[in-house]
Amino acid sequence: MSKIIFDSGISLDGYFAGDNRGPQNPMGGVSGQIHQWMFKQKAFWKHLKMDGGQEQGEDGKLIDAVFARTGAYIMGKRMFEEGEVSWPEDLYQADVFVLTHEKREPWIQKGTTAFYFINDGIHSALEKAKKSANGKDIRIQGGANTIQQFLNAGLIDEFFIHVAPVFLGSGIRLFDGIDKDKFDLQIMEVLTSDLTTHLRYKLSKK
Amino acid sequence: MSKIIFDSGISLDGYFAGDNRGPQNPMGGVSGQIHQWMFKQKAFWKHLKMDGGQEQGEDGKLIDAVFARTGAYIMGKRMFEEGEVSWPEDLYQADVFVLTHEKREPWIQKGTTAFYFINDGIHSALEKAKKSANGKDIRIQGGANTIQQFLNAGLIDEFFIHVAPVFLGSGIRLFDGIDKDKFDLQIMEVLTSDLTTHLRYKLSKK
Repeated sequence: MSKIIFDSGISLDGYFAGDNRGPQNPMGGVSGQIHQWMFKQKAFWKHLKMDGGQEQGEDGKLIDAVFARTGAYIMGKRMFEEGEVSWPEDLYQADVFVLTHEKREPWIQKGTTAFYFINDGIHSALEKAKKSANGKDIRIQGGANTIQQFLNAGLIDEFFIHVAPVFLGSGIRLFDGIDKDKFDLQIMEVLTSDLTTHLRYKLSKK
Repeated sequence: MSKIIFDSGISLDGYFAGDNRGPQNPMGGVSGQIHQWMFKQKAFWKHLKMDGGQEQGEDGKLIDAVFARTGAYIMGKRMFEEGEVSWPEDLYQADVFVLTHEKREPWIQKGTTAFYFINDGIHSALEKAKKSANGKDIRIQGGANTIQQFLNAGLIDEFFIHVAPVFLGSGIRLFDGIDKDKFDLQIMEVLTSDLTTHLRYKLSKK
């Protein structure tokens, strides 16, 4: 059965993105600080179908693993708009359901990536993603607000965070306004490297 | 040479304390959730000179270690007021410098704990703590605002955080308004258990 997951990098002070996000300034310009560990991994660039990265170890395996288990993605409109202008073709290699008020025809890319624009809320997106995922997991890609919506609706089964050893001081926090009464959390896995600390949690409904 | 450290429990969403803190509601009532790992350790109760705890392992050793290395404490007025009414006598077994506007004579307890009330700011408190610590480390005990003042003044050498697998949803965050340009951080140690994840960082001035 499909699990609903997210897998996000954050700063030590909890920020998922910086200030003044937008298509000209994806993630508020902090991706280099939060995702440095990722950019060093050959696995990351392989999924972008580009050459890059120096490392091929445990951190890279995590990237491969989340990619392999994911059968469909859900993301918010702002994240989509930030990425639309810059993502390489066929980045997700799966269906991506974008939460938006905009009516728009599906954007079918070369390869196996297709973006569908969902106007009737997270439950509708989830239903469509489940059908598309065909037993694989559904990854709530972001932004933070979209992840918070799924958390507060009690819909997340498991998540991975990657805590970079950096302070950002301001921006958009991943865990903001979380409903404390929805879940019990269990620490499942902790892995560390110089560049980040990987923490995996399982959630069970209270 | 004395290092300046802090060692704090926080929730997964980054809270050091809950809402509505006060002497009748220390830490906003969330200590049981954030510090559960600590309350299970025999080492914790030993330092309180009380019987308690079930576990005697790696987590307990961390409590012993920070206690052993600390030669003096600095804390904010609100944390002091919360503790004053409930802490057992001689809890700190060292000098504690309390940042406050209140003029007050030192409170010398039985044993080796003494509270000194400092009216002229963090640098003055630090100078006095250094003299008192006699080469051991100076622990900025809390609350969050006091720790933030020391961080933003560029005065912290190292810290330990203990991240409990719990969401609190609101309260006072440990890392709020941190000056991102003061430090580079380095991951020094990551230890995990069922109840918390211990993360140690070293800071170097930018």
